[in-house]
Amino acid sequence: MSEKNQKSALSESGSKPASANVNPKSAQKIRASRKNKFEEEDLLQQLLNGNKTALGRAITLVESNQFSHRKKAQQLLEGALPYSQKSIRIGITGVPGVGKSTFIESFGSYLIEQGKKVAVLAVDPSSSVSHGSILGDKTRMENLVKEENAFIRPSASGSSLGGVAKKTRESIILCEAAGFDVVLIETVGVGQSETTVHSMTDFFLLLKLAGAGDELQGIKRGIIEMADAIVINKADGDNIKAAREAKLEFNRALQLYPSKESGWKPKVALSSALKQTGIDSVWELIKEFEKLGKENGFFLKNRKEQNKFWLLQTINEHLKNRFYQNPVMKNELEIQLKAIENNKITAFAAADLLIEKFENLD
Amino acid sequence: MSEKNQKSALSESGSKPASANVNPKSAQKIRASRKNKFEEEDLLQQLLNGNKTALGRAITLVESNQFSHRKKAQQLLEGALPYSQKSIRIGITGVPGVGKSTFIESFGSYLIEQGKKVAVLAVDPSSSVSHGSILGDKTRMENLVKEENAFIRPSASGSSLGGVAKKTRESIILCEAAGFDVVLIETVGVGQSETTVHSMTDFFLLLKLAGAGDELQGIKRGIIEMADAIVINKADGDNIKAAREAKLEFNRALQLYPSKESGWKPKVALSSALKQTGIDSVWELIKEFEKLGKENGFFLKNRKEQNKFWLLQTINEHLKNRFYQNPVMKNELEIQLKAIENNKITAFAAADLLIEKFENLD
Repeated sequence: MSEKNQKSALSESGSKPASANVNPKSAQKIRASRKNKFEEEDLLQQLLNGNKTALGRAITLVESNQFSHRKKAQQLLEGALPYSQKSIRIGITGVPGVGKSTFIESFGSYLIEQGKKVAVLAVDPSSSVSHGSILGDKTRMENLVKEENAFIRPSASGSSLGGVAKKTRESIILCEAAGFDVVLIETVGVGQSETTVHSMTDFFLLLKLAGAGDELQGIKRGIIEMADAIVINKADGDNIKAAREAKLEFNRALQLYPSKESGWKPKVALSSALKQTGIDSVWELIKEFEKLGKENGFFLKNRKEQNKFWLLQTINEHLKNRFYQNPVMKNELEIQLKAIENNKITAFAAADLLIEKFENLD
Repeated sequence: MSEKNQKSALSESGSKPASANVNPKSAQKIRASRKNKFEEEDLLQQLLNGNKTALGRAITLVESNQFSHRKKAQQLLEGALPYSQKSIRIGITGVPGVGKSTFIESFGSYLIEQGKKVAVLAVDPSSSVSHGSILGDKTRMENLVKEENAFIRPSASGSSLGGVAKKTRESIILCEAAGFDVVLIETVGVGQSETTVHSMTDFFLLLKLAGAGDELQGIKRGIIEMADAIVINKADGDNIKAAREAKLEFNRALQLYPSKESGWKPKVALSSALKQTGIDSVWELIKEFEKLGKENGFFLKNRKEQNKFWLLQTINEHLKNRFYQNPVMKNELEIQLKAIENNKITAFAAADLLIEKFENLD
């Protein structure tokens, strides 16, 4: 990418007449470019010093789809990488209404009291439409947002979950380099967003409300299997009995699942974000999880596997896009699907034809 | 593929001197080719007549990796396709020792008594090593194997599950064209083999034994979610009480899962293949499932989606193989993985570099 950019800069200066006297416009450009270079180094330095304004600007660069911004973002990320990796990354999911914002507000404030620096990000693939439905309204976390040691950022927008995921992963690195040692990543259950957040966090927390007895109905496939903890929220007042019963049911359900590679047995906890109860035991759980994972090696192994996953995922998406977004192949695919439906050809023979077509495209 | 073959035939004849007199070797070749053509049409005709020897030969062609066989297989499949699609395809899984062979023997014999023609195939990705561990020993189904209306075939061998899956899918078409109206596809739980069999069948049956109370422990992730029925086998003699308890536990567990797109509520049944009990109710279940699916449209929709799945799956595998099996890319991938591990580069930037490398390979 950086190479391409250099080429375009070269051809630009090449298109201007060579002259012994420096053209005033060029001089201006050179100054601007020197200033930019200085600014980038400065931005990285300020970010590493923990300056939240710098962090915000850096994330804006990472989220930008503009080519020149991407290059700057890449330089920033490379500078930030050696200083990152030191936090714990916690994914938090739960259906709308479960009290995610209130929980994060309480949990984040508690962590800051414990001397932590807390960053809150969000993955919301619907945000390109709704302009950031989660965390968009920062006033929902009115105490946390005032804390010096808290950094809150709404979901990046993007046309695909993959794009949002990439921006969020890069934002995590920047937050960590800025000294935030707990990164909370919130998601609502839109499409595959939980799986995406699970693939970029160390610990995955499912928030639930105590309901009318059939607690497990309506939970999306695979969510329970991903959870390291299920926290039953709003366990206060008249809800306490129902919350305790829900805890029993979830505990029984968790036992039905195969044991996790992490060696961790998922736990169920009760909390009231409103009454500020149970928050400390959630943090104790997470610390216990981290200790186990650092002892048995799973913690670092998992991060390494996540890196590999995102590398391969990005390559695979690209390879598929080249095929499926090609207008000729789109058309051919429709033709073959019709032929399969009419029993004219098997799926495998059709695939062979399509592959041959694709390879002879140019 | 057929085009390539024609090209190579053309270049072959082009390399020989043109002559007015037909060279005796060429004449022999022409006769052999005419004979082959006749034989293929004959093979298809015999297959459509329900000749089991022809079916066996056709499957051997489909399983062959030889290029000339692949071409013949393709012609056979195209001829068979309009006559297929009329059976019900039933996937059967369960750990070794659960009594799959005995169950299939009883179930198959029962179906034949009901006037059905029953084909039994297997998907066993380990069979390239063990030379067909499931169904390899046909004597395990000594009654079924003698039936005129039964056809039993061990698993295709292959270096990849994808290869075995393709051969099995094609064999299903041939069995159906030969008039087999129930196709049973057995698998042991090696790697992703259950998912593979699930993706090529209409109904998925999990065989279980009543155990020591914790029935759900040790079941692989996702298997229960795929099952349309769980049949507790060997529910006879001293086992009956445990089997009934297991039935209760599975019924409770099944309720915890989200409802299926098919609209079908998975059922638990007891059976004793040895005592020939419960076999009829398993068949009743499957008929009920088929009736529901044909009424609500899921049955055909699912087959259509399976066709699309295998088409896309085959294309995607090919696209990935071109990248990941390229020796240059293999090497570059290792380098980038090391760089990511050492915090020199993000997974996304590394992916960009690899993609650029790949696109400039030739």
